[in-house]
Amino acid sequence: MNYQGRKISLVVIRRLPRYYRYLGELISQDIKRISSKDLSEKMGVTASQIRQDLNCFGGFGQQGYGYNVEELYYEIGCILGLNDGHRTIIAGAGHLGHALANHGGFEKRGFKLIGIFDNDKSKIGTIVNGVEIRDIAKMGAFLKENPADIGILAVTRDSTKEVAKEMIQHGIKGLWNFSYVDLDVPDDVVVENVHLSDSLMTLSYRIGEGKI
Amino acid sequence: MNYQGRKISLVVIRRLPRYYRYLGELISQDIKRISSKDLSEKMGVTASQIRQDLNCFGGFGQQGYGYNVEELYYEIGCILGLNDGHRTIIAGAGHLGHALANHGGFEKRGFKLIGIFDNDKSKIGTIVNGVEIRDIAKMGAFLKENPADIGILAVTRDSTKEVAKEMIQHGIKGLWNFSYVDLDVPDDVVVENVHLSDSLMTLSYRIGEGKI
Repeated sequence: MNYQGRKISLVVIRRLPRYYRYLGELISQDIKRISSKDLSEKMGVTASQIRQDLNCFGGFGQQGYGYNVEELYYEIGCILGLNDGHRTIIAGAGHLGHALANHGGFEKRGFKLIGIFDNDKSKIGTIVNGVEIRDIAKMGAFLKENPADIGILAVTRDSTKEVAKEMIQHGIKGLWNFSYVDLDVPDDVVVENVHLSDSLMTLSYRIGEGKI
Repeated sequence: MNYQGRKISLVVIRRLPRYYRYLGELISQDIKRISSKDLSEKMGVTASQIRQDLNCFGGFGQQGYGYNVEELYYEIGCILGLNDGHRTIIAGAGHLGHALANHGGFEKRGFKLIGIFDNDKSKIGTIVNGVEIRDIAKMGAFLKENPADIGILAVTRDSTKEVAKEMIQHGIKGLWNFSYVDLDVPDDVVVENVHLSDSLMTLSYRIGEGKI
């Protein structure tokens, strides 16, 4: 990971979306600036952690003033690559695919859904959140005409590898993978695996705390 | 966080589900033991990190032997509170609720779905993964007869606080919250918020790496 020649650890990167969400809330509350102390209390992390994280990117705060909320929001958006937008497709129009297509937060953060694909004839031709479900057999042809950079894998486990391969062949650079399959991808393609059960297992631990 | 009197950081706890998943895969491949070096290569973390993490819980490895896969899987299951099982309900039988109810991984990890609730009359009475969708107005009465410890919040943002309150009143100790609402809960109740867009934003950063 690097930003303007600096090496940034993935641990820091993974905290940025949270800063971004909180700053977005502050903007909606019309808050113009915030100290690292107030931001840290709101987010439940230490002020020194926040300063350290944001210093990785050159530091946006000013001594005695704190952070300019809109500026910091915009800058983190730049770092995360959100401000230019991402053209996104979903493979799999089952319940998960529908839930993701209807997720209000994605478009707000610059992820524009341009296509959704399935092999179920009863679904093809229906509309989800303004986007027509198309035959997954025609996904490659669609991508040739309508390039996209993010592919969401919400298909069954069995077909994940095949669908991922076709997405990559047609220029997808980032795969958001909801199936529990490890994917081998070329060096210029990245995969984020979503393991929902990890968060459920953490909840289980926290319920049990003190009982052990 | 503490385990047998030791203080364990949440950062370590959050890594345990991943160990648990990998060990489960090794078991399904009939692998009996593994060195911390091999486990670390498989998981993409350092061997010293693995030793350090597992030492928090007393350390299960033996010098020159590595880890007994089944034993370590069982022990991590104990730490995470998975081996006794959790009685789980879902509020909200929309696409997300259906996707979660049908998620194969949860039951395998000890989360038994005993009820699913919605206010949509066209859904009430239908069956999802063997469980009947019931009227959410009767959720409290159901929980009196059928105690549960985990409540999954897959309802709309507007009704999340109210539904969470009712779950807590009827004995739910852990809330798995998919709506973007901060919940105030009593000290003996824990909340895990799922922010899917955080992982999508991290993907966006990783696609853009080097472009900045």
